[in-house]
Amino acid sequence: MGYQIGICDTMFARVDMFAIADRAIKDSGEDILVERYTVPGVKDLPVAAKKLFEEHGCDIVLALGMPGKESIDKMCSHEASQGLIEVQLLESKHILEIFVHLDEAKDEKDLLEIARRRTYDHTINAIALLKGKTELSEKAGKGIRQGRDNAGEIIWKE
Amino acid sequence: MGYQIGICDTMFARVDMFAIADRAIKDSGEDILVERYTVPGVKDLPVAAKKLFEEHGCDIVLALGMPGKESIDKMCSHEASQGLIEVQLLESKHILEIFVHLDEAKDEKDLLEIARRRTYDHTINAIALLKGKTELSEKAGKGIRQGRDNAGEIIWKE
Amino acid sequence: MGYQIGICDTMFARVDMFAIADRAIKDSGEDILVERYTVPGVKDLPVAAKKLFEEHGCDIVLALGMPGKESIDKMCSHEASQGLIEVQLLESKHILEIFVHLDEAKDEKDLLEIARRRTYDHTINAIALLKGKTELSEKAGKGIRQGRDNAGEIIWKE
Amino acid sequence: MGYQIGICDTMFARVDMFAIADRAIKDSGEDILVERYTVPGVKDLPVAAKKLFEEHGCDIVLALGMPGKESIDKMCSHEASQGLIEVQLLESKHILEIFVHLDEAKDEKDLLEIARRRTYDHTINAIALLKGKTELSEKAGKGIRQGRDNAGEIIWKE
Amino acid sequence: MGYQIGICDTMFARVDMFAIADRAIKDSGEDILVERYTVPGVKDLPVAAKKLFEEHGCDIVLALGMPGKESIDKMCSHEASQGLIEVQLLESKHILEIFVHLDEAKDEKDLLEIARRRTYDHTINAIALLKGKTELSEKAGKGIRQGRDNAGEIIWKE
Repeated sequence: MGYQIGICDTMFARVDMFAIADRAIKDSGEDILVERYTVPGVKDLPVAAKKLFEEHGCDIVLALGMPGKESIDKMCSHEASQGLIEVQLLESKHILEIFVHLDEAKDEKDLLEIARRRTYDHTINAIALLKGKTELSEKAGKGIRQGRDNAGEIIWKE
Repeated sequence: MGYQIGICDTMFARVDMFAIADRAIKDSGEDILVERYTVPGVKDLPVAAKKLFEEHGCDIVLALGMPGKESIDKMCSHEASQGLIEVQLLESKHILEIFVHLDEAKDEKDLLEIARRRTYDHTINAIALLKGKTELSEKAGKGIRQGRDNAGEIIWKE
Repeated sequence: MGYQIGICDTMFARVDMFAIADRAIKDSGEDILVERYTVPGVKDLPVAAKKLFEEHGCDIVLALGMPGKESIDKMCSHEASQGLIEVQLLESKHILEIFVHLDEAKDEKDLLEIARRRTYDHTINAIALLKGKTELSEKAGKGIRQGRDNAGEIIWKE
Repeated sequence: MGYQIGICDTMFARVDMFAIADRAIKDSGEDILVERYTVPGVKDLPVAAKKLFEEHGCDIVLALGMPGKESIDKMCSHEASQGLIEVQLLESKHILEIFVHLDEAKDEKDLLEIARRRTYDHTINAIALLKGKTELSEKAGKGIRQGRDNAGEIIWKE
Repeated sequence: MGYQIGICDTMFARVDMFAIADRAIKDSGEDILVERYTVPGVKDLPVAAKKLFEEHGCDIVLALGMPGKESIDKMCSHEASQGLIEVQLLESKHILEIFVHLDEAKDEKDLLEIARRRTYDHTINAIALLKGKTELSEKAGKGIRQGRDNAGEIIWKE
């Protein structure tokens, strides 16, 4: 029996991040059912995620968003993030927040590339988290970045 | 049987945003009952929204507000937004926060126009959300802005 | 049978805001019982408000405070405000936060005048909120400010 | 039968604030039992305070801390303060936060003096709060500062 | 019968902080069972910590992370910290947040040294907290810093 992954996305985002996540799930070859929930903006994501868990039986949720450049947008993003953490604690289930900030890209092409890589990679992380708490352990402490080049590991020797 | 939409508005706002939301609901032609709740300012909206859900049976709430320009106003707006997210998680129901910030408009005419468009468009979004979780999906990832020109979609091709 | 209004005030404030609120209640001619709770500073107000609801049966609470000018004071005020919203959501009852910031006045005379007007006007608002959710609706969207001149309404015509 | 006061302190603080609070309690001549809880830093205080209430039966808690000068320290202090308010609301009991910020003193001697006065005065406030909600009312609105000179009252006349 | 310590770490961190914590636990000679949980980044730590308590029976949790330099990273770190405090209050158990910020080190060697010392020292603190609430009291008020030189005590004399 497979997993059920909830994906919430927004009208505000400028890239169809849902399609990227859906692609990653299909590429994984896993037996996964997808439930989608579309809302206007990132602040609407927390309750949508909660409903995906409670009313649609999802095991994990991907919260896709693309906050704007202005300081008011930063605040919205912060409020959304707090809400997404709160939902995780209410449900004891993971939500992977996959936000691409409009001001982290140098142009539209770069924005698309960050969105593509971050969404794809975090969707793969989500599938790993469903399998167990040490599924990602071999990648721990290695400076891994989703959507950008990895920062790399600094080796510690006893 | 129709829906029941709660609308909370404030004395602080400089535009009668309730009238705009009410107009949008009437224009929709849907069978919708409106419950209004007026409070002094945006920080009073969260508990008003909660009471609209619990004591008046609303299915969704529109939280209308117009925060000021000063840094203290930004903080009030932030606190209100956090509270509105918390209420959504308590109730497992959406609240659409429709805030127009006094400093995002260049003059009073512009302020009125932003207030009119944002309130009207988000009221339509609220009605869509009542109908189902994918009702807005065809508008997802398209850079849609309420109260301003859309940012537009950046097309992703596999 | 009348209402019961809780009033919490602080040692930190430089004006006896309780006396102003109490005056407004007496002037209203309403049958209202007042319960007072004095704490050191604004961060002590949330739990005091909760106790006024739960242990003293208040129907609404006025939270009176006068935060300082420093950035640490701004943070205290923010934390207090968040707590006051949380109490409202726990109790499903309004708390009107009546804060006068020491840096919004140009001198002590001005501070006193802001404190007097804001406390008086919000106390009247609190009495209105006790009567019903549309009691303040005729004042909605009119740019009303407590403690300062009103910003005024910008008329919207269909 | 006397009161039980919980005192949590930190390894991070540079002054033995516990000893000052303990001195104030002894000086009060009241029948008070003290329970101490020491944690590494201010962010560990909220759960320590909760445990002092729930596992050790305290009636009130003093949360002693000395946040650092850096912006990261400010954030830690803010997070601790939010947690301390949350514990108060969970328990319906007061926690007096007695924080001395390393950057509010001009030198070590000044830091010690602020720590001594603030801790001592707030410990006395805590004992007053245990006795009743209007025990501090005669000091309300008088601009009282713990650890610094009072700001003083601005008299309001009807 | 020994203790069970949960350790959550991240893929984002550039140092294998888990190995350092595990080393400190082994060095302690105590009878301690370790449960590991690896997540992508610091915002995923709160729910992982909650699951370590509820699903794996841990007595205390170490939350290991290495937030980035950008303002967005600071916000992530803040959100994670708030969530970690919330989990502590839900569980009435300590989580020691062991975060090393990428911008507090002058180079990679320094980063490694801070990570090593802070992780090691806080792991020892965690073991002490498991033994009792005054286990750390002899170190209180002494200006102790994990990962850096101690600030030192300022002696108070009655």
